Amino acid sequence: MSAATSLRCSDCASTHPLDYLLACPDCGGLLFVEYDLDRIARMPFGSLAGPGIWPYAELLPIPDPAHQVTLGEGSTPLIAVPRLAAAMGLDNLWLKFDGLNPTGTVKDRSAVTAVAAARQFGFDRIGVVSTGNAATAIAAYAARADIRALVLSSATSSRPKVSHVNALTADFMMYRGNYDDLIGAFDRAIDSRVVFDGGASRNPYKQDGKKTLAYEVFEQLGLQAPDYVVYPVGMGELLLASQRGFRELHAAGHADSVPVPVAAQSSIADTIVKALNEGGPRVSISIDYTIAEGVAVGDMGAKGDWVLRDLRDAGGLGAAASDDEVVEWQNRLARLEGIWAGPTGCITLPVLAALVAQGKIARDARVVCTVSETGLKSDLEPPDIPIIEANEAAILDFLQS
Amino acid sequence: MSAATSLRCSDCASTHPLDYLLACPDCGGLLFVEYDLDRIARMPFGSLAGPGIWPYAELLPIPDPAHQVTLGEGSTPLIAVPRLAAAMGLDNLWLKFDGLNPTGTVKDRSAVTAVAAARQFGFDRIGVVSTGNAATAIAAYAARADIRALVLSSATSSRPKVSHVNALTADFMMYRGNYDDLIGAFDRAIDSRVVFDGGASRNPYKQDGKKTLAYEVFEQLGLQAPDYVVYPVGMGELLLASQRGFRELHAAGHADSVPVPVAAQSSIADTIVKALNEGGPRVSISIDYTIAEGVAVGDMGAKGDWVLRDLRDAGGLGAAASDDEVVEWQNRLARLEGIWAGPTGCITLPVLAALVAQGKIARDARVVCTVSETGLKSDLEPPDIPIIEANEAAILDFLQS
Repeated sequence: MSAATSLRCSDCASTHPLDYLLACPDCGGLLFVEYDLDRIARMPFGSLAGPGIWPYAELLPIPDPAHQVTLGEGSTPLIAVPRLAAAMGLDNLWLKFDGLNPTGTVKDRSAVTAVAAARQFGFDRIGVVSTGNAATAIAAYAARADIRALVLSSATSSRPKVSHVNALTADFMMYRGNYDDLIGAFDRAIDSRVVFDGGASRNPYKQDGKKTLAYEVFEQLGLQAPDYVVYPVGMGELLLASQRGFRELHAAGHADSVPVPVAAQSSIADTIVKALNEGGPRVSISIDYTIAEGVAVGDMGAKGDWVLRDLRDAGGLGAAASDDEVVEWQNRLARLEGIWAGPTGCITLPVLAALVAQGKIARDARVVCTVSETGLKSDLEPPDIPIIEANEAAILDFLQS
Repeated sequence: MSAATSLRCSDCASTHPLDYLLACPDCGGLLFVEYDLDRIARMPFGSLAGPGIWPYAELLPIPDPAHQVTLGEGSTPLIAVPRLAAAMGLDNLWLKFDGLNPTGTVKDRSAVTAVAAARQFGFDRIGVVSTGNAATAIAAYAARADIRALVLSSATSSRPKVSHVNALTADFMMYRGNYDDLIGAFDRAIDSRVVFDGGASRNPYKQDGKKTLAYEVFEQLGLQAPDYVVYPVGMGELLLASQRGFRELHAAGHADSVPVPVAAQSSIADTIVKALNEGGPRVSISIDYTIAEGVAVGDMGAKGDWVLRDLRDAGGLGAAASDDEVVEWQNRLARLEGIWAGPTGCITLPVLAALVAQGKIARDARVVCTVSETGLKSDLEPPDIPIIEANEAAILDFLQS
């Protein structure tokens, strides 16, 4: 009950059996799962049913229901936001609010297939290195599947993220420094096969879960693709997977078009945006802290080259936003539409606003902006709120103010 | 497009037109919305569609779509939890995880209909006094509907709740002391009609949104009612509304039975549980702090008497849990099932475990336990997590541990 046929190399295009492979045996390139287009063409989009992301089981590489796992992820709302759209100069804007996933971020979509794949390939433990959100997602689904999660999370992770991971797994350590400093050593340790790969660099089974965002958007727009989709780009997993999902829908004849991808990065970690806008190759950089913790990646490695290629092939756009701009739009989103998103989640908003202001996206374009993280995972200094006296006159005075 | 016919008094049973009434004009009793059973009988449960809680628009008292508002609330997962069930000695346990609502709690269900009713009755502002969760919910939906939210929130509210409300509304003040000290004065101020009532004591339009939890559970169980539903009881709004929803389903011929309600309270605020188990009337008490902020109500007023009557009429059960028990089950839920719930949300778990241990709920009963709050709204002291060195040998050592 899966249309998956093989692994294909994103570099040399060779195909390989659906084994636990993290790199192309021919050239070392990154792999993705390929599917039978005829079977995709026969899928009844609009009337698929099942728990979590498993309505799309046929489009995921986990054929055996015994390996599947769910906490009710996915089916997140696509919210029309007319007031926010007007503030940006757009007529048609929807937010795909993935902060309503079980651990509060889009990472749950890939944690599901990562943990399910660990079961499928006979592992009883999964490891992850993360700035915080992937850590909670992998730990949650591993607990649900009764396998061990070994979690390395950044020492700069917000308090709610740390408490969250700590509740989920006993095997939890932190690291100082940047994600970039850890991920290389983590990937080499993964090659020893002591744990299944829950990282964002290479595992083709993990990333495929994020394709489901594309399928949901397509169904929620009445079986149509939007003109643009804006994605936060840390390691670029969501952009790669979701755009692959949209391309599958198009190639199989369900969708008339493929949306133009838009990459949103932090101005302190803007390697893709810089290469895209200035031409030339991606150049890794050493980075500082950003409140948009989930996109704090200065060295995306081979995955970065893949993201850049995907964007160029699709005529994609990109822009970077500062922490101040992120906070400005985070608050604007709350006040205008009642949605409380985290910094990583709403870095897409200032980026979209900038591209509209520059005339790169037209007013009448149909735009979906992913908001990938709830605001509840942030650790803000509490504001200084005035205290009221507990009597009727004071309360009435306030209510009339 | 609403089957609502009238307001009915919970005390004297008189009926009244669907106006903005907060008390029975005849006897001062609390009111609820009554519906045309023939129209409910014709509703196609199992194939209703629409955004947020509005698939059930016909069962809500907001007929005009122009007044309806949504942030994608409801449709929360009903999660089978076999390992947690085994830990309790149950064979059939599901969690209705309402922490995946837009502001992280079940309060969104009633904030929707409260804000929609404010629009319906021509108000451009809504007020609320809250220990924290209702504050964020009302502020979020008011922002979404472009009306002002005037929010009074407890000074003991967790940091994430305070930051959340502050992001949503400029009209935010805090109070010292207990909810009980404020709610009386707030309700009297509401009677001046300067703002619409977003409080939990009286507004029949607000509470009706919470009926949707019952409809969802009924549909998610394959058009069947469970044997028991466990609810956290602060002001008792969820228990009252959800049980009314189940009774409607039964009276209209959709469901074969009505579940037995189970009230979960904090051992520091156990007025309903005490009256239920010892007989006699509800006696209000003066309370201290509990980490289960949402059930920190010592004086439920007239609503408490209604809750007690409802429980007695239905042969309901109740138990109270200490903060330590809440934390114990919060962590057990995380480790066994990967679900991170807040203290208010999982106070239902130790209560259910106790009732099973006492033999009051049989092993083979079909039990739905509401988990009404995400863990991300809590403010835990971050645990002291060991720091790892960023080299391959150290990482490998950890992954092999």
